[in-house]
Amino acid sequence: MNILPDKQTVKEVIDQSGIKSVSTASIREIVKLVNDLESATGCRYVRMEMGVPGLAAAQTGVDAEIRSLKNGVASVYPDIEGLPELKVETSKFVKLFLDLDIAPEGCIPTVGSTMGSMAAFIVANNTHRGRAGALFIDPGFPVQKMQVKMLGHEIFTFDLFNFRGKKLKEKLESVLSEGKVSSIIYSNPNNPTWMCLTEEELAMIGEASDKYDVVVIEDLAYFAMDFRTDYSHAGQPPYQPTVGKFTDNYILLISSSKAFSYAGQRLGMMAISDRLYNRIYPNLLNFYSTDKFGHAVVYGALYGLSAGSPHSAQHGLYAILKDVNNGNYDFLDIVKEYGEKAGIMKSMFTDNGFTIAYDTDIDKPIADGFYFTIAYRGMKSGELLEKLLYHGISAITLDITGSSRNDGLRACVSHVFREQFNDLEMRLRQFGLDNSV
Amino acid sequence: MNILPDKQTVKEVIDQSGIKSVSTASIREIVKLVNDLESATGCRYVRMEMGVPGLAAAQTGVDAEIRSLKNGVASVYPDIEGLPELKVETSKFVKLFLDLDIAPEGCIPTVGSTMGSMAAFIVANNTHRGRAGALFIDPGFPVQKMQVKMLGHEIFTFDLFNFRGKKLKEKLESVLSEGKVSSIIYSNPNNPTWMCLTEEELAMIGEASDKYDVVVIEDLAYFAMDFRTDYSHAGQPPYQPTVGKFTDNYILLISSSKAFSYAGQRLGMMAISDRLYNRIYPNLLNFYSTDKFGHAVVYGALYGLSAGSPHSAQHGLYAILKDVNNGNYDFLDIVKEYGEKAGIMKSMFTDNGFTIAYDTDIDKPIADGFYFTIAYRGMKSGELLEKLLYHGISAITLDITGSSRNDGLRACVSHVFREQFNDLEMRLRQFGLDNSV
Repeated sequence: MNILPDKQTVKEVIDQSGIKSVSTASIREIVKLVNDLESATGCRYVRMEMGVPGLAAAQTGVDAEIRSLKNGVASVYPDIEGLPELKVETSKFVKLFLDLDIAPEGCIPTVGSTMGSMAAFIVANNTHRGRAGALFIDPGFPVQKMQVKMLGHEIFTFDLFNFRGKKLKEKLESVLSEGKVSSIIYSNPNNPTWMCLTEEELAMIGEASDKYDVVVIEDLAYFAMDFRTDYSHAGQPPYQPTVGKFTDNYILLISSSKAFSYAGQRLGMMAISDRLYNRIYPNLLNFYSTDKFGHAVVYGALYGLSAGSPHSAQHGLYAILKDVNNGNYDFLDIVKEYGEKAGIMKSMFTDNGFTIAYDTDIDKPIADGFYFTIAYRGMKSGELLEKLLYHGISAITLDITGSSRNDGLRACVSHVFREQFNDLEMRLRQFGLDNSV
Repeated sequence: MNILPDKQTVKEVIDQSGIKSVSTASIREIVKLVNDLESATGCRYVRMEMGVPGLAAAQTGVDAEIRSLKNGVASVYPDIEGLPELKVETSKFVKLFLDLDIAPEGCIPTVGSTMGSMAAFIVANNTHRGRAGALFIDPGFPVQKMQVKMLGHEIFTFDLFNFRGKKLKEKLESVLSEGKVSSIIYSNPNNPTWMCLTEEELAMIGEASDKYDVVVIEDLAYFAMDFRTDYSHAGQPPYQPTVGKFTDNYILLISSSKAFSYAGQRLGMMAISDRLYNRIYPNLLNFYSTDKFGHAVVYGALYGLSAGSPHSAQHGLYAILKDVNNGNYDFLDIVKEYGEKAGIMKSMFTDNGFTIAYDTDIDKPIADGFYFTIAYRGMKSGELLEKLLYHGISAITLDITGSSRNDGLRACVSHVFREQFNDLEMRLRQFGLDNSV
């Protein structure tokens, strides 16, 4: 079998896809295109376009879900505040891995962290008259911008890479001082670039949120996956850095999709600081039966979005967190496979003329993790992606993530398997030959 | 054991509850109050306040969920359009029980019908510039009004009971002609009153929705539970009446919570008419990457609300619908228990001086079903509810449902068990004695 797909066939499939430009195509459009390319060419692609788990779900969760279904939970509406024992274990998890004290009351299941950010955007924007929307510390997850846009809220944004370290403080000031921002959102580690905010930067975000009374939404979708530091020891430093050390104006989003490979059941946890949960905002009464932030999130937003989270999945996540908290399940030992693969794959790219687009955290090389970014000699992202597709490799461009660059691609390691590494290396070598100056 | 709870204890519990007036308390507040009353008095209440299923979940669904979990779906993101086989069975179900043709594409799983109405409100309100909110054909489900309010949309409303039959057309005209309504919502059978719209009334709603280009959201939470007519024969008339016979501007919400006693897993289906699904509204481009209604619902609203519906639950509902469609599972035969209990319980109330608050569908006595409404000699709803609580009986007032009456209560039959009927009868007799003129 040829290591590369047939050129003519690739051209035909791309032409017939209806995609006007691969640089602005959505992730789902690229996924469909690559499915079509694989079936038309018979070539197995090195698929780096999807940000989905590549491991089996935490078995303890699956077993607990099955037990709960046998016990009859399918007929019983879940408590809108969440399964009490899940709330307790989430509170413990937050203490053990972030060293933050959040009461179980503020630990609330959501239908994926997607619903968590949606609820947070809605309620945060209702706290003050005149607030217009969310500030994205970009690049970021395109779906979160879509949420803000469909609510009719405004999007504020800057590319973090251009404002690292001390520059961040000034940039935050300049945006927040206009008084229109209701929330600040970022993911840490960052999707798509894998930049990790330093404690110094998190402190700046925390201080700015206090000064301008803005809610910080910290998306921990890739919890503790900065593998440069070992955050795996429950209750012992070092802890995953968090803005919660520097302000009380925060909501954490803790996804089960990647950390526990539990994406299918759509269950995440949001954790609201005690002070924010109990905080009174008179303006909330224009939208809810309460002026208390946490009550508006639970009995307003979350009740209105789905009337609670799927019952058996709550039992599943409870069992997982209990095992993690008790030291019986080292989830980071399992997902560090992503970091190891990233290290190998990044070398293959750089050995063949590529650069890492977002290459540093201020003064340190970026960590190896779930995603990395690539560029090739100033080639525009759309052209680069298209050329890679001709070489049996797929990714997405950074154009759709709020990046200020126009030459970068995001590569996800989760669905590239080690037995494909030879293919990847040979394809990249051929790419280098085909595109040498 | 005394048949009535101790008066002094009831008084103390109510005083300590912090509830200012039981007439405006939310359902969840009443539930908590009755829990406290039961534990303080030792009296088992006749609990009619909760609208939750009182039967076991459809076993075929539970079994299918367990199989899918064993097959590894917990780690796999669900398709945002929904499990293909579930979409096909939903389309068949709609054909067999409503006699409507809706392509599988427009049949989309949601995280409960709660998310279905939320997504519908959001996208419908984005279709035209200047549309302000939803028209509720009331009384209705309080959560849906909460959804509209928290989005910052306007609520339009009238009490259907005052505009039955030919009066409905005129009332719809008067509200819709202002051009501010983006959607019309009602449940049929109606929660809380169990009124059922006639074909003539549905035709008026359909015609008005065409004339003013408004999306109709038909909430079929109590699918085919007007037991005066046998709608149980798949593919044979009579069919559950639907607005879909009279307009193409519609979205159906098909809940699994009551029909299949599947409330715990939060999975409903929305079914969008083919024409509406494919309809182009240029104004949608201000909020989504598409101007196509169905695409905005799926890849905009539903993606943004939860990134899909829980994976195993989709397999569960698929198995249930397949059995229903094949004639292997007669769900109406199971839930007709609700209607039978309602008949018995209503007699007990009317035998003791109560009236049915919403007593007719135009010229026919109202059906027996999941809910009925009661009133007592002009007593205000708050006073009536409080007096019933002293007699070991709970319900909610109609004040929170958009009813134009101030003397009615909603009674739900699902959590009253036949072995409690003697208690209910004796308590009502005592109530009659204590409140005779």
